[in-house]
Amino acid sequence: MRDLDEFTVTDEALAQMAGTANPRLKEILDAAVRHLHAFAREVNLTPQEWLQGIQFLTAVGQACTPIRQEFILLSDVLGLSAVVNALHDKKARELGTQSSLLGPFYREGAPEMKLGEQIVREPTAEEIVIYGRITDNDGKPVPNATIQVWQTSERGGYDLQERKGDDMDMRGNFRSAADGTYYFRTVRPLGYSIPMDGPVGGLVKTQGRHGMRPSHIHCLVGADGYRELVTALYFGDDPHIDSDTVFGVSESLVVQAKPDPGCPIPGLRAVHYDFRLAKAAPGENGRVGADPTRLAKEIA
Amino acid sequence: MRDLDEFTVTDEALAQMAGTANPRLKEILDAAVRHLHAFAREVNLTPQEWLQGIQFLTAVGQACTPIRQEFILLSDVLGLSAVVNALHDKKARELGTQSSLLGPFYREGAPEMKLGEQIVREPTAEEIVIYGRITDNDGKPVPNATIQVWQTSERGGYDLQERKGDDMDMRGNFRSAADGTYYFRTVRPLGYSIPMDGPVGGLVKTQGRHGMRPSHIHCLVGADGYRELVTALYFGDDPHIDSDTVFGVSESLVVQAKPDPGCPIPGLRAVHYDFRLAKAAPGENGRVGADPTRLAKEIA
Repeated sequence: MRDLDEFTVTDEALAQMAGTANPRLKEILDAAVRHLHAFAREVNLTPQEWLQGIQFLTAVGQACTPIRQEFILLSDVLGLSAVVNALHDKKARELGTQSSLLGPFYREGAPEMKLGEQIVREPTAEEIVIYGRITDNDGKPVPNATIQVWQTSERGGYDLQERKGDDMDMRGNFRSAADGTYYFRTVRPLGYSIPMDGPVGGLVKTQGRHGMRPSHIHCLVGADGYRELVTALYFGDDPHIDSDTVFGVSESLVVQAKPDPGCPIPGLRAVHYDFRLAKAAPGENGRVGADPTRLAKEIA
Repeated sequence: MRDLDEFTVTDEALAQMAGTANPRLKEILDAAVRHLHAFAREVNLTPQEWLQGIQFLTAVGQACTPIRQEFILLSDVLGLSAVVNALHDKKARELGTQSSLLGPFYREGAPEMKLGEQIVREPTAEEIVIYGRITDNDGKPVPNATIQVWQTSERGGYDLQERKGDDMDMRGNFRSAADGTYYFRTVRPLGYSIPMDGPVGGLVKTQGRHGMRPSHIHCLVGADGYRELVTALYFGDDPHIDSDTVFGVSESLVVQAKPDPGCPIPGLRAVHYDFRLAKAAPGENGRVGADPTRLAKEIA
């Protein structure tokens, strides 16, 4: 036996974990332990600070409900989700449309809609059109692709925040036409604050951050044989376009609604955006995010 | 605006956090974000793996109850608690008695007892005596020091596991005599498994670890003007003395119960252990651990 110090504890922990049967799990946990210990040594973490961290993480876990995933929010505001997204995106970056974060408000089973339908049930602001084509990387149309879209209302809330329980709104699932085109009506969503009433909101406030996301529409585009595309379109004139709290904005995803002679619904301002899907490599699909209501059921 | 990749996201996150008013909080969170991102890049964390991590941490948070602190357990089995403890212990290492982990079973308000009392309400195994002196580093007796002790029963369970609610057993609070001596009766505790029915137990099983802690008695020793000593005495003949799942054992804390002419209660086998308290520096106190029942109340 030896007396463990702040360095040899790390060796001892890695030695005890050496029997992990799954080599990938072992690789991940070894790295996690090394970085976790190095972090504690670097800042000379005190017992009081350690306890505050334990209390914070416990509060984050206990703030999770069937309609709220506070750990995903924590990952988002610390930039971890964006890092994982960027790693996942690396290969496809020069090929398909750039990706963005799924965020905590995606839901499975949104209403199936026909091209051109309005996704907002009771719009109280100017209607706009989002339209374009879904193609592969050679510009060849991808027909019958699924396009799932979801967004906040003109007041800045998602249905999970503005309506009760399973009542869905401001979201819809479309399919591209034979020539790869898609279009739907909506209203311009309002940029919004991440939920600030929980432990992660408290952290962000302590850091002097505004907690805002710029106005955007989430898009999840998929078709057989292609890499699932998780992305979002960001409105360029939003005041927070350059300081997104969760690091989701990329230059290539910035759009504006404007008068457009090519708009399939004449008279409405339109956002024209074409999505390019990259071919899928085996086992490559997977999203940085999940339907929080399903997640809650799996854990319960 | 720029397109963020897996490296520039880190810069951007640090820039957004630059306004943190508390400089120590900023230092800790900066390091946490750098290490977290470096970890994800090092293992090229995939979206699926990220999601499994989110689900695991959520389950850990939700497993916390007023009598169970699963995040402390996670910190323990990953060796983080031992690292923080070692950092805290560094200064006092050559001065006072070595420390060990507080663990998740400490409770405030344990019964006040007289020297020599039995801490186990219904002992069914051989009684033994723990005795010795509490001194400062020069060997000068420290009278009226508080000695809080807690342990498992001869069956390997703490009161929180074997009894209901607030019913305390196998723990007691003593005070040293005028000459610094202390002594109490107990039974030899059984080494035990950490709780294996939660997410952390699942992790430990996946890692092929036995999950056992060697037989030990926790001791929390304090006196005005001295550094609070969080430690434990470990029985050297336990089969898991060299493979403690939470990395708490140090050579200097290993004891054995044996016939001892110096034992203050004749006829019983005894463990003789003297505690040395280091002088406290200002603001230096603080434990790697807490009463989980109080912690739960603070978070709720």
